[in-house]
Amino acid sequence: MRVKNRLLNFGDMIIYQDDECLKFSLDSVLLANFVTIKPTDKTIVDLCSGNAPVPMLLSFRTKAKIYGIEIQRNIYQLGYDSIKENGLDEQIDFLNFDVLNISQYMENEKYDIVTCNPPYFKYNETSLVNTNDSLTVARHEVCIKLEDVIRAAKYLLKNGGTFSLVHRPERIIEIITLLKKYGFEPKKMQFVYPKIEKDANTVLIEAVKNGRSGLKVLKPLIVYDEFENYYPDIKNMFGDGSNVAK
Amino acid sequence: MRVKNRLLNFGDMIIYQDDECLKFSLDSVLLANFVTIKPTDKTIVDLCSGNAPVPMLLSFRTKAKIYGIEIQRNIYQLGYDSIKENGLDEQIDFLNFDVLNISQYMENEKYDIVTCNPPYFKYNETSLVNTNDSLTVARHEVCIKLEDVIRAAKYLLKNGGTFSLVHRPERIIEIITLLKKYGFEPKKMQFVYPKIEKDANTVLIEAVKNGRSGLKVLKPLIVYDEFENYYPDIKNMFGDGSNVAK
Repeated sequence: MRVKNRLLNFGDMIIYQDDECLKFSLDSVLLANFVTIKPTDKTIVDLCSGNAPVPMLLSFRTKAKIYGIEIQRNIYQLGYDSIKENGLDEQIDFLNFDVLNISQYMENEKYDIVTCNPPYFKYNETSLVNTNDSLTVARHEVCIKLEDVIRAAKYLLKNGGTFSLVHRPERIIEIITLLKKYGFEPKKMQFVYPKIEKDANTVLIEAVKNGRSGLKVLKPLIVYDEFENYYPDIKNMFGDGSNVAK
Repeated sequence: MRVKNRLLNFGDMIIYQDDECLKFSLDSVLLANFVTIKPTDKTIVDLCSGNAPVPMLLSFRTKAKIYGIEIQRNIYQLGYDSIKENGLDEQIDFLNFDVLNISQYMENEKYDIVTCNPPYFKYNETSLVNTNDSLTVARHEVCIKLEDVIRAAKYLLKNGGTFSLVHRPERIIEIITLLKKYGFEPKKMQFVYPKIEKDANTVLIEAVKNGRSGLKVLKPLIVYDEFENYYPDIKNMFGDGSNVAK
């Protein structure tokens, strides 16, 4: 069922969600906060946009032109309507196509920043998942794999452009190996721990196309304190987290 | 000047140190706690041992035979005397040779675990460092480089053996790239943050020779709280940290 949520922490931003599609989660908020945006950056492309949380959240941080790309028609429609209702359709071009066909729709080596909150889980044909299901496509690598996303980022970005993504720590080694393969140098990483006593469950990585080596691992982001309240960093980004996926 | 320190937190362990050599630091304690030791592990080799803190601390955790290797004669002597004075010379063989010549002294594919707290800083010939200085050799890659350490670990370890090292986060990308080059799969990583609001300054990595992929990023290790006291995890490992390098 389609619902209309109002995000108090983001200037009353309206976001349409649907129980049958992946709701936007803390990961999108973390990514939109993490990405380095320079005053000279003029264009951003967000891949695998879902219902467009990352493009909309980025619009609070920059006047740059933002492109969002989502393959699934139903979730694309939610994002399209949210962008329109928030009056962000001048700044954000929300596009409904398959990132695998990026070169048919977008220019080569033209953009300053690429962001992506991709499907996290490997898909193999024996997985007991329904490939027609919208949630499955958003979560599993059915339509697009990590390497496809990195290849698309390389195609889109100018030399020296930055690519930021959010993913699961289990896949860091593969992410780093593929980034290097496509000429990216990781420059900034940040780990998200659900609690101070728990292993990391999320990682944010930013890499520069043809950048020089030298990585920073930013301060830990710890989500909940011992009383199950958000830590201040998270609260500042995310408000009370109501109406969004956990 | 040589001093004799008594580490209250480690069964009154005695450790000889010298202001002219690198003193053992929190990093050695972190490494000795971090390394996975299975009950079936019979042999451990610690490379770049300094005054032998890692071999001695490991002896509290295992009955396995431990070999420590240190190239510098002056710091080797401190370690040798400490091992003797603590009555650990049955369990620990402390050896004075150059890890670059490992194949002359140690057997191939024989050992279960390799540990290393190597020199952290890249050395280039324009560096304003004194290559005869003991501290410089311990801190800078004058005598041994990261790749040499990883090559030695590959030589020493059985198939499925584990290699654990402590290093600086700036060099993670290089570490991961070299581990993969030499057939290691990183399985466990842990970041050390001086404070909860600070970037990581240390990373611990464990990799398995010819292991399967799948990384865990363990809970954050935060050193100091807002009152400059050690966090409980650190205090449990390190006591009050008196008499050791910061």
